[in-house]
Amino acid sequence: MTPQSSTATTVPTLVEALGRELPADRIVIDPAVLQSMSHDEAQWAVVGTPAVAVRARTESDVRIAVRIAADLALPVVPRGAGTGLSGGANAVDGCLIVDVSRMTEILEIDTDNLTCMVQPGIVNDDLKAAVAEHGLWYPPDPASAPWSTIGGNVATNAGGLCCLKYGVTRDYVLGLRAVVGGPAGYGNAVRLGRRTNKGVAGYDLTSLMVGSEGTLGIITEITLRLRPARSGAPRTVVGAFSGLVAAGRAVALAISRGLEPSALELLDRTCLRAVEDWKHLGIEADAAGLLLARIDTPSAAGDLEADAMAQAFDDAGAMWATRSTDAVEAEALFEARRLAYPALERLGSVLTEDICVPRSKLPEMLARIEAIASEHDLTMSTIAHAGDGNLHPLILTPVGDDAARARAQLAFEELIDAALGFGGTVTGEHGVGLLKRSGLLRELDPGSLLMQKAVKHALDPLNIFNPGKVL
Amino acid sequence: MTPQSSTATTVPTLVEALGRELPADRIVIDPAVLQSMSHDEAQWAVVGTPAVAVRARTESDVRIAVRIAADLALPVVPRGAGTGLSGGANAVDGCLIVDVSRMTEILEIDTDNLTCMVQPGIVNDDLKAAVAEHGLWYPPDPASAPWSTIGGNVATNAGGLCCLKYGVTRDYVLGLRAVVGGPAGYGNAVRLGRRTNKGVAGYDLTSLMVGSEGTLGIITEITLRLRPARSGAPRTVVGAFSGLVAAGRAVALAISRGLEPSALELLDRTCLRAVEDWKHLGIEADAAGLLLARIDTPSAAGDLEADAMAQAFDDAGAMWATRSTDAVEAEALFEARRLAYPALERLGSVLTEDICVPRSKLPEMLARIEAIASEHDLTMSTIAHAGDGNLHPLILTPVGDDAARARAQLAFEELIDAALGFGGTVTGEHGVGLLKRSGLLRELDPGSLLMQKAVKHALDPLNIFNPGKVL
Repeated sequence: MTPQSSTATTVPTLVEALGRELPADRIVIDPAVLQSMSHDEAQWAVVGTPAVAVRARTESDVRIAVRIAADLALPVVPRGAGTGLSGGANAVDGCLIVDVSRMTEILEIDTDNLTCMVQPGIVNDDLKAAVAEHGLWYPPDPASAPWSTIGGNVATNAGGLCCLKYGVTRDYVLGLRAVVGGPAGYGNAVRLGRRTNKGVAGYDLTSLMVGSEGTLGIITEITLRLRPARSGAPRTVVGAFSGLVAAGRAVALAISRGLEPSALELLDRTCLRAVEDWKHLGIEADAAGLLLARIDTPSAAGDLEADAMAQAFDDAGAMWATRSTDAVEAEALFEARRLAYPALERLGSVLTEDICVPRSKLPEMLARIEAIASEHDLTMSTIAHAGDGNLHPLILTPVGDDAARARAQLAFEELIDAALGFGGTVTGEHGVGLLKRSGLLRELDPGSLLMQKAVKHALDPLNIFNPGKVL
Repeated sequence: MTPQSSTATTVPTLVEALGRELPADRIVIDPAVLQSMSHDEAQWAVVGTPAVAVRARTESDVRIAVRIAADLALPVVPRGAGTGLSGGANAVDGCLIVDVSRMTEILEIDTDNLTCMVQPGIVNDDLKAAVAEHGLWYPPDPASAPWSTIGGNVATNAGGLCCLKYGVTRDYVLGLRAVVGGPAGYGNAVRLGRRTNKGVAGYDLTSLMVGSEGTLGIITEITLRLRPARSGAPRTVVGAFSGLVAAGRAVALAISRGLEPSALELLDRTCLRAVEDWKHLGIEADAAGLLLARIDTPSAAGDLEADAMAQAFDDAGAMWATRSTDAVEAEALFEARRLAYPALERLGSVLTEDICVPRSKLPEMLARIEAIASEHDLTMSTIAHAGDGNLHPLILTPVGDDAARARAQLAFEELIDAALGFGGTVTGEHGVGLLKRSGLLRELDPGSLLMQKAVKHALDPLNIFNPGKVL
């Protein structure tokens, strides 16, 4: 299905056509720069060679790029900051990259209606800071929030820590504009969704676009729901466990008891040590794993909830569980969580898993992870949005060790099969991209897969939007 | 696009084909019974004459019905309890009705993972009661909750009172099974979505099905997210206003101040009197309108929030605003809200509006409603999920008064245009059905409409699933 391009003949035509309609500073043809724009952070995914890139500054730039690509039947690969972990932004050979990371404007912050309208290139943390000045809060907080763009967050339906209580990116997207193809005409922009708090006018194409990883069009504007800023300091409860399975039991117990922390994260010893060796935050990793819970329920009810969380940790067999009274220490632990991925990347080549299982299956899944690591003689570090059942076992292999790499790939697929066996999913929040495609085929009902393909074909009959990703 | 059927020749063929595969008690051919199954509660929508109905008891029954209808290219109109307000469940001429209201089983309540799996025919309040026995809560609460089915709630993405704080039906649907057509084959059942708390594996076809009003398939099983039951009695704050515009100002003020009530409802004098005359709850309607707020934030923070709500009412010019200390009185007021629609139906023919505007536009929209009622010499009663900006001006006309009816239809479209002018939507929660189709055309971006049609055609190329609804 991927459009074929004869690079020799089409590249000059493509660059020429773009040059006729776009200022020169929008067009990238330098091979070294193109190479740097041709991949995301998924170290193990295949990377193609792009023909050219457009650094879009306006929706009109995106429209021109898509129209010209469609005329030449060339693939278009959109990208934001390139912080993805599944290869969703990786170039395919001969493609036109559309980089929206310079479309960073906040078009509106509506303090009366608790919404904002932004361009896709704004960085998550920059948006958070801007709305905070108005007493508002944009909750989704992927660990990449300091670098990743809202457009990329929307394209992958990014999660994060606080989605356990406050929902994922899709829950905040009210409407969007996108440059699409097919029925609306390649290179045309459409407005989807709404700006009201509720609305059921027609099919929910907004939710369809969210998480579609650029395969149905390129998002050029997003209307987001915001929340009032939270007041008061959250409570942090820390539990140390002699084994990860016991930590999994603690999470399952807390969820089944109806506790609603704003975050419930798991970090294993390998991860804690990697962060400590790098950043010297003063974390002692005497346990096999730590659970970090945040409770932001206000006033006395929050205190009760924090106590109940510590109790659940104890009841599941924690070595110790305590409410952190030291704000600096608590912040260091959450900082360690945010730094986990880059800290582990320093130790070798990282293959990132993103499975999600029903919370009750966490103890069994954690046991399987340990067994699979051991069977394949691999180093794995497990960090997890444990409260969601969303696990990131990271497989670490020495750079250049092809045998370890081959074992890692086997383990990667076995982890996915185990998660599916527990009623789970191949990807909780990173997206399918390139790395999870075979897992997706094993997860989806065959009829559902046919429906997905039919939707893709209906909305992108030329199959030029990020071809080969997701499906 | 609607498939044409020559009733004379196809009805016997259809009934015969159904009879070969289904027990006789599943098949309805009695014209009087068929007539009662041929419409929902939208009194003003066109009703066609069905050929036959299948009272499905299993997914297999639904599969058989859809396969046979597809073989004969006959329209299939699904229905639950028939409590819809937009004509979405109304028969089209010569159709096969598939009634799923007897598929009422709860297949699973998973107390460990806070989910349940149900058949589509279970009544909303019955599900609420069943999960409450396990300390769990299913929040979506359309006013029809005592009668409407979960399948219908999902098909229309039903809202309700508490969606202001807790979200609409779509926010609770993790996955579903549906009998579909097209790419998966007419009459085949597919599994969509997931049962984990998070997941981004492929396009979100679950969200696409939610709110699609039976036009993409027939839902046969639903996996729902649940929440822990709330503890403690909520606080009720009541405000009385001498005009509805001031009440709208109070809502806009409360939202802009970041208050998060679990319900914030508006009832006008006409509605309060209609309920009182019928049920004698002891409500004195001395004001033009009442605002009812519910605050369920626990402990001291909730008390502060209730006080802040009363303050917002006062600041917007309430005649009086008070925290209700009498639980019986508070319950009577919310009971009045629930009974508003049937109480007003007793007064004449009701044309139900369901517009939704940005909350800041409520005062202006309420002023427009009054002006439009006056211009057209019509009685309107406005009830509203005011906190969401979702207004239900109900146009009341004497039965048999054709002139009033004609004026009402003009007013109906003017109300929609006014809402669209304020950046609103034609339907906040009732769905498009038949009544809001022309409004939908005015609301949607033409490109978005083409995309919607392409999705419908891709998933139902025969156009047999509830044809003529939504699009």
